[in-house]
Amino acid sequence: MSDELTHINKNGEANMVDVGDKPIQKRTAKATGFIKLQENTLSLINNNMMKKGDVLSVARIAGIQAAKQTHFLIPLCHALQLSKVDVDFEIKEDGIRVDSLSRCEGQTGVEMEALTAVNVALLTIYDMCKAVDKDMEMSNIRLLEKTKV
Amino acid sequence: MSDELTHINKNGEANMVDVGDKPIQKRTAKATGFIKLQENTLSLINNNMMKKGDVLSVARIAGIQAAKQTHFLIPLCHALQLSKVDVDFEIKEDGIRVDSLSRCEGQTGVEMEALTAVNVALLTIYDMCKAVDKDMEMSNIRLLEKTKV
Amino acid sequence: MSDELTHINKNGEANMVDVGDKPIQKRTAKATGFIKLQENTLSLINNNMMKKGDVLSVARIAGIQAAKQTHFLIPLCHALQLSKVDVDFEIKEDGIRVDSLSRCEGQTGVEMEALTAVNVALLTIYDMCKAVDKDMEMSNIRLLEKTKV
Amino acid sequence: MSDELTHINKNGEANMVDVGDKPIQKRTAKATGFIKLQENTLSLINNNMMKKGDVLSVARIAGIQAAKQTHFLIPLCHALQLSKVDVDFEIKEDGIRVDSLSRCEGQTGVEMEALTAVNVALLTIYDMCKAVDKDMEMSNIRLLEKTKV
Amino acid sequence: MSDELTHINKNGEANMVDVGDKPIQKRTAKATGFIKLQENTLSLINNNMMKKGDVLSVARIAGIQAAKQTHFLIPLCHALQLSKVDVDFEIKEDGIRVDSLSRCEGQTGVEMEALTAVNVALLTIYDMCKAVDKDMEMSNIRLLEKTKV
Amino acid sequence: MSDELTHINKNGEANMVDVGDKPIQKRTAKATGFIKLQENTLSLINNNMMKKGDVLSVARIAGIQAAKQTHFLIPLCHALQLSKVDVDFEIKEDGIRVDSLSRCEGQTGVEMEALTAVNVALLTIYDMCKAVDKDMEMSNIRLLEKTKV
Repeated sequence: MSDELTHINKNGEANMVDVGDKPIQKRTAKATGFIKLQENTLSLINNNMMKKGDVLSVARIAGIQAAKQTHFLIPLCHALQLSKVDVDFEIKEDGIRVDSLSRCEGQTGVEMEALTAVNVALLTIYDMCKAVDKDMEMSNIRLLEKTKV
Repeated sequence: MSDELTHINKNGEANMVDVGDKPIQKRTAKATGFIKLQENTLSLINNNMMKKGDVLSVARIAGIQAAKQTHFLIPLCHALQLSKVDVDFEIKEDGIRVDSLSRCEGQTGVEMEALTAVNVALLTIYDMCKAVDKDMEMSNIRLLEKTKV
Repeated sequence: MSDELTHINKNGEANMVDVGDKPIQKRTAKATGFIKLQENTLSLINNNMMKKGDVLSVARIAGIQAAKQTHFLIPLCHALQLSKVDVDFEIKEDGIRVDSLSRCEGQTGVEMEALTAVNVALLTIYDMCKAVDKDMEMSNIRLLEKTKV
Repeated sequence: MSDELTHINKNGEANMVDVGDKPIQKRTAKATGFIKLQENTLSLINNNMMKKGDVLSVARIAGIQAAKQTHFLIPLCHALQLSKVDVDFEIKEDGIRVDSLSRCEGQTGVEMEALTAVNVALLTIYDMCKAVDKDMEMSNIRLLEKTKV
Repeated sequence: MSDELTHINKNGEANMVDVGDKPIQKRTAKATGFIKLQENTLSLINNNMMKKGDVLSVARIAGIQAAKQTHFLIPLCHALQLSKVDVDFEIKEDGIRVDSLSRCEGQTGVEMEALTAVNVALLTIYDMCKAVDKDMEMSNIRLLEKTKV
Repeated sequence: MSDELTHINKNGEANMVDVGDKPIQKRTAKATGFIKLQENTLSLINNNMMKKGDVLSVARIAGIQAAKQTHFLIPLCHALQLSKVDVDFEIKEDGIRVDSLSRCEGQTGVEMEALTAVNVALLTIYDMCKAVDKDMEMSNIRLLEKTKV
């Protein structure tokens, strides 16, 4: 593991790492996150799922769309051609867990895309529930796995 | 407080709330979040701050820029004309706390802008430290305060 | 009605109309469009609706998001602060009808936003059905109504 | 031909198809569409073309630019590196026909890019003529051809 | 005139100025710039103008579109609702002069929008001529006038 | 060298050059530009650099971000997957010189990305100094070097 901040050059200035000489590999990343919700909010989302599930549908689309914009949001990220982004939800007793998967064939990893998908999916749930729940909190956002072949 | 999901209409479909009849008010929101970092990572960021502070400078700019894009990232958010966005950092023993403030004069609140600024600032710190720290986690992301006058 | 192309100046050059002296009014526009689909495609979409309705949910979100980006897509459109965008679907015998509504308080009309929402919703249905239906066609895209108060 | 909606997974949820294992091929797509215009509108556009042709120039640029943004507009589309986009116009007796061509070397087809170029070119003509023509309608928007080598 | 960098706070950190208490005024800005071109390039552009003038048409559209994106390009700029953007060209002996005008009713000036329009129009001319002219240079980019009423 | 405007087709219409048959090569471009500043402005920037260097940090990030958006800003540019973008500053007696470097492996050159980075970095310095300096001017913006291997 590196012991230097690779995005900072020798003068302490921000720096976009040159990935031009890295091999092209199939890369995958999985990330997760959680949003704490009140019981009443969860039951409203659940009832809605019985109908059309729009809270989670909207959050899924927002997460996928955000993954494709990662390099515009995170200043030193490279543009990648994602071959797949997935966003999934698991309803827990006290909130909703979000899991994402992103894949590409490229010269640099896709963890920022997976994490961005999770973060924006969580923000979208927050947005859609903020009229009924004043006690939401996002947490446990982290990388689960990262592979290259 | 509402007991309905305002972004979902009577058919359970996603819905952009009509804010056209709400009064124009000065609105403020403050949000916060935290990223857990290893001691070594914090000391690298600190040393850099002694010089030019680019990790936190880049994260600050990313957060401010993201706040301005909130309505493109969160599907049912309205475009707002933000009069101010601020992103601040506090270095703690085990990570960095991010605080944001957003302000606008408009018909709907600015909490999603404040939260988006926090989330993208955290993601940017993550991106810039990921080569040296494999154990980062984002948490405690929540609204601190919301006012209108 | 004008008998000049207002987006073209006296030299025949493209021109962004100055709306700075027009009064601020509440403006609404409704637009519609249609996509022809095969019976089999419609039945797949319908079955999906029984579950989670994602084809139309995704198309709705795409339409709403696109409306907010109208001024970036259509070169001489002004940025507007939309107070509401709605996208609805009606399943017909030979396809799907899309209806949209957009509202703002501003100095210029919102018909391009309503039409952009319809167009991108139609394109999204197309995208999601293109593996099963090689005979889709979009038509009847037009403004239904435009009001200002 | 598939008999399943590939953008919907087994749970009926929206899904970005994984194109990571598809071969990289040279892909082309052609699309077309039509906008009905009044005789007077057509003659204004024609007169302008005698000078500088700006209505169609602006529509062409808008279509090309939109093709490059397809994956941000259509939620489940992949980013592609387009090697070419062309937008052409044919003035008919009762309106204007738009034709587009898009090309890329990649793992998935470019028909959505060609269709998006057509749709946004049509919307741009609509926008530039809406002060003089209240009876415009867009129709006949469809794929003409799709190849891969 | 201020003697402090208003975008930097007391700790030397980047800062989005709070414009929330400034009066809403009609604001105008004019900017200009120049691109040096070889005689042969100018004659090619001129010949094209005799036909359809596309080099300058494309540059005009690019400049107008860029003005609308100023707040996404310049990190500490506020979003403004531009009521008008104009981009004009004057062909000189040794190059092309670009002039822009931008207008809005708002709480902060529109000079960055006018300058961004000029810069991106110049870059677009550069792009369209770079196959025939290896000696282009952009210069004299400055604000001409700024008013508020 | 070509003696035709490659972005204009035989009918004088704008045209996105087909790069699909060009070989994939490692490409580099370097560009430069200058912004004239008053002595007082330079000393304020310098003092700030002693602290945290934010004027130039913000301009650097803005330039890097803009390079990634070149194909959205310049209508006939192709999307490229940049492997590196660098923006550097040199403080001169009467202003600041900006230098940029961009790299990619692709079918077309990266000079527009390098020039866009310079232009937007200059605009960002302008924005951050405009409250204290009414006499800024951007000039000498040109390509320094372009290679392919």
